[in-house]
Amino acid sequence: MSIGETVNLVNNIEELEKRIDYRFENKTILETAITHSSYIKEHCKGGKSNERLEFLGDAFFDAIIGEELFSVFTDKEEGFLSQLRAVLVCEDSLAKAATRLEIGEFLKLGKGEAKNGGRHRKSILADALEAIMGAVYLDGGFEEVKRVVLGIFADDVRDVEIGKITSEDYKTNLQEILQKNGNIDIKYEVIKQEGPDHDKTFTVRLFINGEPETTGVGKSKKKAEQKAAKHMMEKL
Amino acid sequence: MSIGETVNLVNNIEELEKRIDYRFENKTILETAITHSSYIKEHCKGGKSNERLEFLGDAFFDAIIGEELFSVFTDKEEGFLSQLRAVLVCEDSLAKAATRLEIGEFLKLGKGEAKNGGRHRKSILADALEAIMGAVYLDGGFEEVKRVVLGIFADDVRDVEIGKITSEDYKTNLQEILQKNGNIDIKYEVIKQEGPDHDKTFTVRLFINGEPETTGVGKSKKKAEQKAAKHMMEKL
Repeated sequence: MSIGETVNLVNNIEELEKRIDYRFENKTILETAITHSSYIKEHCKGGKSNERLEFLGDAFFDAIIGEELFSVFTDKEEGFLSQLRAVLVCEDSLAKAATRLEIGEFLKLGKGEAKNGGRHRKSILADALEAIMGAVYLDGGFEEVKRVVLGIFADDVRDVEIGKITSEDYKTNLQEILQKNGNIDIKYEVIKQEGPDHDKTFTVRLFINGEPETTGVGKSKKKAEQKAAKHMMEKL
Repeated sequence: MSIGETVNLVNNIEELEKRIDYRFENKTILETAITHSSYIKEHCKGGKSNERLEFLGDAFFDAIIGEELFSVFTDKEEGFLSQLRAVLVCEDSLAKAATRLEIGEFLKLGKGEAKNGGRHRKSILADALEAIMGAVYLDGGFEEVKRVVLGIFADDVRDVEIGKITSEDYKTNLQEILQKNGNIDIKYEVIKQEGPDHDKTFTVRLFINGEPETTGVGKSKKKAEQKAAKHMMEKL
Protein backbone atom coordinates (compact mmCIF):
# COMPACT_ATOMS: atom_id res chain seq x y z
CA MET A 1 0.00 0.00 0.00
CA SER A 2 1.42 3.41 -0.98
CA ILE A 3 1.68 6.32 1.46
CA GLY A 4 -0.96 8.17 -0.55
CA GLU A 5 -3.46 5.38 -0.01
CA THR A 6 -2.72 5.20 3.70
CA VAL A 7 -3.40 8.91 4.21
CA ASN A 8 -6.57 8.61 2.20
CA LEU A 9 -7.75 5.67 4.29
CA VAL A 10 -7.14 7.47 7.60
CA ASN A 11 -9.08 10.48 6.36
CA ASN A 12 -11.90 8.27 5.28
CA ILE A 13 -12.10 6.57 8.60
CA GLU A 14 -12.28 9.89 10.44
CA GLU A 15 -15.05 11.02 8.12
CA LEU A 16 -16.94 7.77 8.71
CA GLU A 17 -16.53 8.20 12.46
CA LYS A 18 -18.08 11.66 12.19
CA ARG A 19 -21.06 10.35 10.28
CA ILE A 20 -21.90 7.64 12.80
CA ASP A 21 -20.93 9.94 15.69
CA TYR A 22 -18.47 7.56 17.31
CA ARG A 23 -14.68 7.78 17.59
CA PHE A 24 -12.90 4.43 17.68
CA GLU A 25 -10.16 3.67 20.16
CA ASN A 26 -9.06 0.83 17.90
CA LYS A 27 -9.39 1.90 14.26
CA THR A 28 -8.53 -1.60 13.03
CA ILE A 29 -11.94 -2.86 14.12
CA LEU A 30 -13.67 -0.21 12.03
CA GLU A 31 -11.47 -1.07 9.06
CA THR A 32 -12.54 -4.70 9.35
CA ALA A 33 -16.18 -3.61 9.57
CA ILE A 34 -15.99 -1.88 6.17
CA THR A 35 -14.13 -4.73 4.45
CA HIS A 36 -16.40 -6.83 2.27
CA SER A 37 -15.55 -10.50 1.68
CA SER A 38 -15.03 -9.77 -2.06
CA TYR A 39 -12.07 -7.55 -1.12
CA ILE A 40 -10.48 -10.29 0.98
CA LYS A 41 -10.90 -12.85 -1.80
CA GLU A 42 -9.10 -10.52 -4.18
CA HIS A 43 -6.40 -8.93 -2.05
CA CYS A 44 -5.47 -10.85 1.05
CA LYS A 45 -6.63 -14.39 1.48
CA GLY A 46 -6.71 -15.14 5.17
CA GLY A 47 -7.52 -11.50 6.01
CA LYS A 48 -10.62 -10.55 7.93
CA SER A 49 -13.87 -9.58 6.23
CA ASN A 50 -16.74 -7.92 8.07
CA GLU A 51 -18.90 -11.05 8.23
CA ARG A 52 -18.17 -11.96 11.84
CA LEU A 53 -18.77 -8.38 12.98
CA GLU A 54 -22.05 -8.39 11.05
CA PHE A 55 -23.12 -11.48 13.04
CA LEU A 56 -22.28 -9.61 16.25
CA GLY A 57 -23.95 -6.31 15.31
CA ASP A 58 -27.14 -7.87 13.98
CA ALA A 59 -28.29 -9.09 17.40
CA PHE A 60 -27.51 -5.75 19.04
CA PHE A 61 -29.73 -3.97 16.51
CA ASP A 62 -32.59 -6.26 17.52
CA ALA A 63 -31.95 -5.78 21.24
CA ILE A 64 -31.57 -1.99 21.09
CA ILE A 65 -34.48 -1.27 18.75
CA GLY A 66 -36.56 -3.82 20.69
CA GLU A 67 -35.91 -2.00 23.94
CA GLU A 68 -36.73 1.35 22.35
CA LEU A 69 -40.10 0.11 21.07
CA PHE A 70 -40.74 -1.55 24.45
CA SER A 71 -40.19 1.84 26.15
CA VAL A 72 -42.12 3.93 23.63
CA PHE A 73 -45.18 1.66 23.34
CA THR A 74 -45.80 0.86 26.99
CA ASP A 75 -49.30 -0.46 26.37
CA LYS A 76 -48.65 -2.58 23.28
CA GLU A 77 -48.41 -6.35 23.20
CA GLU A 78 -45.36 -8.27 22.13
CA GLY A 79 -46.87 -9.23 18.76
CA PHE A 80 -47.16 -5.57 17.83
CA LEU A 81 -43.61 -4.87 19.04
CA SER A 82 -42.17 -7.83 17.09
CA GLN A 83 -43.85 -6.80 13.87
CA LEU A 84 -42.74 -3.23 14.19
CA ARG A 85 -39.18 -4.24 14.95
CA ALA A 86 -39.16 -6.51 11.91
CA VAL A 87 -40.04 -3.45 9.81
CA LEU A 88 -37.33 -1.27 11.39
CA VAL A 89 -34.57 -3.90 11.51
CA CYS A 90 -34.77 -5.40 8.04
CA GLU A 91 -32.43 -5.27 5.05
CA ASP A 92 -34.45 -2.49 3.41
CA SER A 93 -34.46 -0.27 6.43
CA LEU A 94 -30.80 -0.88 7.32
CA ALA A 95 -29.75 -0.24 3.72
CA LYS A 96 -31.69 3.05 3.72
CA ALA A 97 -29.91 4.13 6.89
CA ALA A 98 -26.56 3.12 5.39
CA THR A 99 -27.39 5.15 2.27
CA ARG A 100 -28.24 8.22 4.34
CA LEU A 101 -24.84 7.90 6.01
CA GLU A 102 -23.27 7.30 2.57
CA ILE A 103 -21.47 4.25 3.91
CA GLY A 104 -21.09 2.78 0.41
CA GLU A 105 -18.25 5.11 -0.48
CA PHE A 106 -16.16 3.89 2.46
CA LEU A 107 -16.45 0.18 1.71
CA LYS A 108 -13.48 -1.93 0.69
CA LEU A 109 -14.87 -4.09 -2.12
CA GLY A 110 -13.37 -6.44 -4.65
CA LYS A 111 -12.99 -4.87 -8.10
CA GLY A 112 -15.75 -6.97 -9.64
CA GLU A 113 -18.18 -6.19 -6.86
CA ALA A 114 -17.35 -2.47 -7.07
CA LYS A 115 -17.89 -2.44 -10.85
CA ASN A 116 -21.21 -4.22 -10.51
CA GLY A 117 -22.68 -1.55 -8.27
CA GLY A 118 -21.74 -3.19 -4.97
CA ARG A 119 -21.59 0.20 -3.24
CA HIS A 120 -25.32 0.56 -3.81
CA ARG A 121 -26.35 -3.05 -3.21
CA LYS A 122 -28.84 -3.27 -0.35
CA SER A 123 -27.46 -6.46 1.17
CA ILE A 124 -23.88 -5.15 1.21
CA LEU A 125 -24.94 -1.83 2.75
CA ALA A 126 -27.17 -3.41 5.40
CA ASP A 127 -24.50 -5.96 6.33
CA ALA A 128 -21.84 -3.24 6.57
CA LEU A 129 -24.00 -1.14 8.89
CA GLU A 130 -24.53 -4.17 11.14
CA ALA A 131 -20.80 -4.85 11.09
CA ILE A 132 -20.00 -1.24 12.01
CA MET A 133 -22.36 -1.50 15.00
CA GLY A 134 -20.68 -4.76 16.01
CA ALA A 135 -17.40 -2.86 15.86
CA VAL A 136 -18.76 -0.01 18.00
CA TYR A 137 -19.91 -2.54 20.58
CA LEU A 138 -16.49 -4.22 20.73
CA ASP A 139 -14.69 -0.91 20.93
CA GLY A 140 -16.99 1.08 23.20
CA GLY A 141 -19.40 -1.30 24.93
CA PHE A 142 -23.17 -1.54 25.08
CA GLU A 143 -24.09 2.01 26.10
CA GLU A 144 -22.09 3.44 23.21
CA VAL A 145 -23.56 1.16 20.56
CA LYS A 146 -27.02 1.92 21.96
CA ARG A 147 -26.40 5.65 21.66
CA VAL A 148 -25.11 5.27 18.10
CA VAL A 149 -27.92 2.96 16.91
CA LEU A 150 -30.61 5.20 18.41
CA GLY A 151 -28.91 8.21 16.83
CA ILE A 152 -28.99 6.59 13.39
CA PHE A 153 -32.59 5.44 13.81
CA ALA A 154 -33.90 8.54 15.60
CA ASP A 155 -36.05 9.61 12.62
CA ASP A 156 -37.40 6.11 12.06
CA VAL A 157 -38.32 5.70 15.70
CA ARG A 158 -40.11 9.07 15.57
CA ASP A 159 -41.91 7.98 12.38
CA VAL A 160 -42.99 4.85 14.22
CA GLU A 161 -44.24 6.89 17.17
CA ILE A 162 -46.39 9.13 15.00
CA GLY A 163 -47.65 6.15 12.99
CA LYS A 164 -45.84 7.05 9.75
CA ILE A 165 -44.03 3.70 9.85
CA THR A 166 -46.33 0.79 10.70
CA SER A 167 -46.06 -2.96 10.54
CA GLU A 168 -47.57 -4.88 7.64
CA ASP A 169 -50.42 -6.08 9.84
CA TYR A 170 -52.98 -3.50 8.72
CA LYS A 171 -55.87 -5.06 10.64
CA THR A 172 -54.06 -4.67 13.96
CA ASN A 173 -52.82 -1.19 13.05
CA LEU A 174 -56.29 -0.04 12.07
CA GLN A 175 -57.74 -1.39 15.30
CA GLU A 176 -55.05 0.37 17.34
CA ILE A 177 -55.73 3.69 15.61
CA LEU A 178 -59.53 3.54 15.74
CA GLN A 179 -59.73 2.35 19.31
CA LYS A 180 -57.64 5.23 20.59
CA ASN A 181 -60.94 7.13 20.65
CA GLY A 182 -62.84 4.56 22.69
CA ASN A 183 -64.44 1.24 21.83
CA ILE A 184 -65.30 0.92 18.17
CA ASP A 185 -66.88 -2.07 16.48
CA ILE A 186 -64.81 -3.34 13.53
CA LYS A 187 -66.13 -6.20 11.41
CA TYR A 188 -65.09 -7.89 8.16
CA GLU A 189 -67.63 -9.66 5.97
CA VAL A 190 -67.06 -11.75 2.84
CA ILE A 191 -69.34 -10.18 0.23
CA LYS A 192 -68.18 -12.23 -2.78
CA GLN A 193 -66.41 -15.52 -3.53
CA GLU A 194 -65.40 -16.31 -7.09
CA GLY A 195 -63.61 -19.12 -8.92
CA PRO A 196 -63.19 -22.85 -8.35
CA ASP A 197 -62.39 -24.29 -4.88
CA HIS A 198 -58.62 -24.52 -5.44
CA ASP A 199 -58.34 -20.98 -6.84
CA LYS A 200 -60.88 -18.79 -5.09
CA THR A 201 -60.87 -15.01 -4.89
CA PHE A 202 -62.50 -13.38 -1.88
CA THR A 203 -63.91 -9.88 -1.62
CA VAL A 204 -64.33 -8.59 1.90
CA ARG A 205 -66.05 -5.46 3.15
CA LEU A 206 -64.99 -3.66 6.31
CA PHE A 207 -67.71 -2.31 8.61
CA ILE A 208 -67.03 0.30 11.29
CA ASN A 209 -69.79 0.59 13.88
CA GLY A 210 -72.06 -1.17 11.43
CA GLU A 211 -71.36 1.26 8.59
CA PRO A 212 -69.94 -0.22 5.34
CA GLU A 213 -66.51 1.15 4.54
CA THR A 214 -63.67 -0.04 2.27
CA THR A 215 -63.37 -3.39 0.50
CA GLY A 216 -60.42 -5.69 -0.17
CA VAL A 217 -59.78 -8.52 -2.62
CA GLY A 218 -57.44 -11.46 -2.04
CA LYS A 219 -56.76 -15.16 -2.56
CA SER A 220 -57.75 -15.89 1.04
CA LYS A 221 -60.21 -14.34 3.49
CA LYS A 222 -57.29 -13.14 5.61
CA LYS A 223 -55.52 -11.43 2.71
CA ALA A 224 -58.73 -9.76 1.58
CA GLU A 225 -59.31 -8.47 5.12
CA GLN A 226 -55.78 -7.06 5.28
CA LYS A 227 -56.38 -5.28 1.97
CA ALA A 228 -59.65 -3.79 3.21
CA ALA A 229 -57.90 -2.58 6.38
CA LYS A 230 -55.05 -1.14 4.31
CA HIS A 231 -57.47 0.81 2.13
CA MET A 232 -59.18 2.13 5.24
CA MET A 233 -55.82 3.25 6.67
CA GLU A 234 -55.09 5.11 3.44
CA LYS A 235 -58.54 6.73 3.60
CA LEU A 236 -57.87 7.91 7.18
CA MET B 1 -54.60 -11.91 48.54
CA SER B 2 -54.17 -13.15 52.14
CA ILE B 3 -51.17 -12.21 54.30
CA GLY B 4 -50.01 -15.82 54.14
CA GLU B 5 -49.83 -15.70 50.35
CA THR B 6 -47.96 -12.40 50.38
CA VAL B 7 -45.27 -13.75 52.72
CA ASN B 8 -45.01 -16.86 50.60
CA LEU B 9 -44.60 -14.80 47.43
CA VAL B 10 -41.84 -12.63 48.90
CA ASN B 11 -39.94 -15.72 50.03
CA ASN B 12 -40.32 -17.22 46.62
CA ILE B 13 -38.95 -14.17 44.93
CA GLU B 14 -35.89 -14.14 47.16
CA GLU B 15 -35.30 -17.81 46.40
CA LEU B 16 -35.64 -17.15 42.67
CA GLU B 17 -33.19 -14.26 42.94
CA LYS B 18 -30.68 -16.59 44.57
CA ARG B 19 -31.03 -19.15 41.79
CA ILE B 20 -30.40 -16.68 39.00
CA ASP B 21 -27.79 -14.85 41.10
CA TYR B 22 -29.34 -11.40 40.78
CA ARG B 23 -31.08 -9.25 43.39
CA PHE B 24 -33.77 -6.95 42.01
CA GLU B 25 -34.03 -3.31 43.01
CA ASN B 26 -37.63 -3.35 41.77
CA LYS B 27 -39.25 -6.69 42.69
CA THR B 28 -42.39 -5.85 40.72
CA ILE B 29 -40.53 -6.36 37.44
CA LEU B 30 -39.53 -9.87 38.50
CA GLU B 31 -43.11 -10.61 39.54
CA THR B 32 -44.30 -9.59 36.09
CA ALA B 33 -41.62 -11.80 34.53
CA ILE B 34 -43.00 -14.91 36.26
CA THR B 35 -46.65 -14.14 35.46
CA HIS B 36 -47.99 -16.21 32.59
CA SER B 37 -50.80 -14.81 30.45
CA SER B 38 -53.12 -17.63 31.66
CA TYR B 39 -52.90 -16.16 35.18
CA ILE B 40 -53.86 -12.69 33.96
CA LYS B 41 -56.82 -14.04 32.00
CA GLU B 42 -58.09 -15.74 35.15
CA HIS B 43 -57.28 -13.27 37.92
CA CYS B 44 -56.80 -9.71 36.80
CA LYS B 45 -57.81 -8.68 33.35
CA GLY B 46 -55.74 -5.68 32.37
CA GLY B 47 -52.83 -6.84 34.53
CA LYS B 48 -49.39 -7.43 33.05
CA SER B 49 -48.24 -10.84 31.83
CA ASN B 50 -44.62 -11.62 31.04
CA GLU B 51 -45.03 -11.49 27.25
CA ARG B 52 -43.59 -8.02 26.72
CA LEU B 53 -40.59 -8.82 28.93
CA GLU B 54 -40.09 -12.03 26.96
CA PHE B 55 -39.88 -9.95 23.76
CA LEU B 56 -37.23 -7.79 25.43
CA GLY B 57 -35.19 -10.64 26.92
CA ASP B 58 -35.19 -12.78 23.78
CA ALA B 59 -32.99 -10.37 21.81
CA PHE B 60 -30.54 -9.97 24.69
CA PHE B 61 -30.05 -13.74 24.81
CA ASP B 62 -29.08 -13.66 21.14
CA ALA B 63 -26.75 -10.68 21.58
CA ILE B 64 -25.01 -12.02 24.70
CA ILE B 65 -24.58 -15.62 23.56
CA GLY B 66 -23.60 -14.31 20.11
CA GLU B 67 -20.85 -12.19 21.62
CA GLU B 68 -19.63 -15.09 23.74
CA LEU B 69 -19.34 -17.40 20.72
CA PHE B 70 -17.69 -14.58 18.77
CA SER B 71 -15.05 -14.28 21.53
CA VAL B 72 -14.53 -18.01 22.07
CA PHE B 73 -14.31 -19.02 18.40
CA THR B 74 -12.02 -16.31 17.07
CA ASP B 75 -11.26 -18.17 13.85
CA LYS B 76 -14.76 -19.33 12.95
CA GLU B 77 -16.97 -17.85 10.27
CA GLU B 78 -20.35 -16.28 10.89
CA GLY B 79 -22.25 -19.28 9.48
CA PHE B 80 -20.74 -21.51 12.14
CA LEU B 81 -21.47 -18.96 14.87
CA SER B 82 -25.10 -18.53 13.75
CA GLN B 83 -25.74 -22.25 13.71
CA LEU B 84 -24.20 -22.76 17.10
CA ARG B 85 -26.15 -19.88 18.59
CA ALA B 86 -29.36 -21.32 17.16
CA VAL B 87 -28.62 -24.52 19.08
CA LEU B 88 -27.86 -22.70 22.35
CA VAL B 89 -30.66 -20.12 22.16
CA CYS B 90 -33.63 -22.28 21.20
CA GLU B 91 -36.76 -23.34 23.08
CA ASP B 92 -35.25 -26.69 24.02
CA SER B 93 -32.07 -25.27 25.43
CA LEU B 94 -33.79 -22.39 27.27
CA ALA B 95 -36.36 -24.79 28.74
CA LYS B 96 -33.55 -27.06 29.96
CA ALA B 97 -31.85 -24.12 31.66
CA ALA B 98 -35.17 -23.06 33.22
CA THR B 99 -35.66 -26.62 34.47
CA ARG B 100 -32.19 -26.69 36.05
CA LEU B 101 -33.09 -23.48 37.89
CA GLU B 102 -36.51 -24.98 38.75
CA ILE B 103 -38.24 -21.87 37.50
CA GLY B 104 -41.50 -23.76 36.95
CA GLU B 105 -42.34 -23.78 40.64
CA PHE B 106 -42.23 -19.97 40.83
CA LEU B 107 -44.55 -19.29 37.90
CA LYS B 108 -47.94 -17.68 38.33
CA LEU B 109 -50.18 -19.73 36.05
CA GLY B 110 -53.91 -19.95 35.48
CA LYS B 111 -55.51 -22.95 37.23
CA GLY B 112 -56.17 -24.79 33.98
CA GLU B 113 -52.63 -24.31 32.74
CA ALA B 114 -51.20 -25.42 36.11
CA LYS B 115 -53.36 -28.55 36.12
CA ASN B 116 -52.33 -29.44 32.57
CA GLY B 117 -48.64 -29.53 33.43
CA GLY B 118 -47.88 -25.92 32.51
CA ARG B 119 -45.02 -25.79 35.00
CA HIS B 120 -43.19 -28.37 32.90
CA ARG B 121 -44.19 -27.11 29.47
CA LYS B 122 -41.10 -26.23 27.42
CA SER B 123 -42.57 -23.14 25.77
CA ILE B 124 -43.77 -21.66 29.09
CA LEU B 125 -40.41 -22.32 30.76
CA ALA B 126 -38.34 -20.94 27.89
CA ASP B 127 -40.53 -17.83 27.62
CA ALA B 128 -40.34 -17.24 31.38
CA LEU B 129 -36.54 -17.45 31.35
CA GLU B 130 -36.42 -14.91 28.52
CA ALA B 131 -38.82 -12.67 30.44
CA ILE B 132 -36.71 -12.91 33.60
CA MET B 133 -33.64 -11.84 31.61
CA GLY B 134 -35.64 -8.94 30.15
CA ALA B 135 -36.47 -8.00 33.74
CA VAL B 136 -32.82 -8.20 34.82
CA TYR B 137 -31.89 -5.91 31.93
CA LEU B 138 -34.50 -3.32 32.87
CA ASP B 139 -33.56 -3.47 36.53
CA GLY B 140 -29.78 -3.73 36.33
CA GLY B 141 -28.64 -2.83 32.82
CA PHE B 142 -26.66 -4.66 30.17
CA GLU B 143 -23.58 -5.71 32.15
CA GLU B 144 -25.78 -7.37 34.78
CA VAL B 145 -27.95 -9.29 32.34
CA LYS B 146 -24.78 -10.38 30.53
CA ARG B 147 -23.29 -11.69 33.79
CA VAL B 148 -26.52 -13.54 34.64
CA VAL B 149 -27.02 -15.06 31.18
CA LEU B 150 -23.40 -16.23 30.98
CA GLY B 151 -23.72 -17.64 34.50
CA ILE B 152 -26.78 -19.66 33.54
CA PHE B 153 -25.21 -20.85 30.28
CA ALA B 154 -21.67 -21.38 31.61
CA ASP B 155 -21.89 -25.17 31.28
CA ASP B 156 -23.42 -25.00 27.81
CA VAL B 157 -20.77 -22.61 26.59
CA ARG B 158 -18.09 -24.94 27.97
CA ASP B 159 -19.79 -27.91 26.26
CA VAL B 160 -19.71 -25.92 23.04
CA GLU B 161 -16.02 -25.15 23.48
CA ILE B 162 -15.07 -28.79 23.97
CA GLY B 163 -17.34 -29.85 21.10
CA LYS B 164 -19.92 -31.65 23.24
CA ILE B 165 -22.63 -29.35 21.88
CA THR B 166 -22.44 -28.85 18.12
CA SER B 167 -24.72 -27.42 15.48
CA GLU B 168 -26.89 -29.70 13.33
CA ASP B 169 -24.59 -29.14 10.36
CA TYR B 170 -22.58 -32.33 10.75
CA LYS B 171 -20.62 -31.87 7.53
CA THR B 172 -19.21 -28.55 8.68
CA ASN B 173 -18.61 -29.84 12.19
CA LEU B 174 -16.79 -32.90 10.93
CA GLN B 175 -14.63 -30.76 8.67
CA GLU B 176 -13.79 -28.40 11.54
CA ILE B 177 -12.78 -31.30 13.79
CA LEU B 178 -10.74 -33.21 11.21
CA GLN B 179 -8.94 -30.17 9.85
CA LYS B 180 -7.68 -29.15 13.27
CA ASN B 181 -4.85 -31.59 12.58
CA GLY B 182 -3.89 -30.15 9.21
CA ASN B 183 -5.37 -30.43 5.74
CA ILE B 184 -7.47 -33.53 5.30
CA ASP B 185 -9.34 -34.55 2.17
CA ILE B 186 -13.04 -35.20 2.80
CA LYS B 187 -15.24 -36.45 -0.03
CA TYR B 188 -18.81 -37.70 -0.33
CA GLU B 189 -19.83 -40.07 -3.11
CA VAL B 190 -23.28 -41.35 -4.04
CA ILE B 191 -22.93 -45.13 -4.08
CA LYS B 192 -26.60 -46.02 -4.59
CA GLN B 193 -29.81 -44.40 -5.91
CA GLU B 194 -33.09 -46.24 -5.49
CA GLY B 195 -36.75 -45.60 -6.31
CA PRO B 196 -38.61 -43.55 -8.93
CA ASP B 197 -37.54 -39.99 -9.83
CA HIS B 198 -40.04 -38.25 -7.54
CA ASP B 199 -39.21 -40.46 -4.55
CA LYS B 200 -35.54 -41.35 -4.68
CA THR B 201 -33.40 -42.60 -1.82
CA PHE B 202 -29.69 -41.82 -1.89
CA THR B 203 -26.89 -43.70 -0.19
CA VAL B 204 -23.68 -41.74 0.20
CA ARG B 205 -20.26 -42.90 1.36
CA LEU B 206 -17.81 -40.61 3.12
CA PHE B 207 -14.12 -40.87 2.17
CA ILE B 208 -11.37 -39.43 4.35
CA ASN B 209 -8.03 -39.10 2.55
CA GLY B 210 -9.38 -41.53 -0.02
CA GLU B 211 -10.27 -44.19 2.55
CA PRO B 212 -13.93 -45.31 2.63
CA GLU B 213 -15.58 -44.55 5.97
CA THR B 214 -19.22 -44.28 7.10
CA THR B 215 -22.33 -44.21 4.90
CA GLY B 216 -25.59 -42.26 5.13
CA VAL B 217 -29.04 -42.70 3.62
CA GLY B 218 -31.50 -39.90 2.84
CA LYS B 219 -34.16 -38.53 0.50
CA SER B 220 -31.67 -36.08 -1.01
CA LYS B 221 -27.93 -36.17 -1.65
CA LYS B 222 -27.47 -33.43 0.94
CA LYS B 223 -29.40 -35.28 3.64
CA ALA B 224 -27.52 -38.50 2.95
CA GLU B 225 -24.20 -36.62 3.24
CA GLN B 226 -25.25 -35.10 6.57
CA LYS B 227 -26.13 -38.59 7.83
CA ALA B 228 -22.76 -39.99 6.75
CA ALA B 229 -20.99 -37.10 8.49
CA LYS B 230 -23.11 -37.64 11.62
CA HIS B 231 -22.19 -41.32 11.72
CA MET B 232 -18.52 -40.40 11.34
CA MET B 233 -18.80 -37.91 14.22
CA GLU B 234 -20.29 -40.65 16.40
CA LYS B 235 -17.48 -42.99 15.39
CA LEU B 236 -14.89 -40.36 16.40
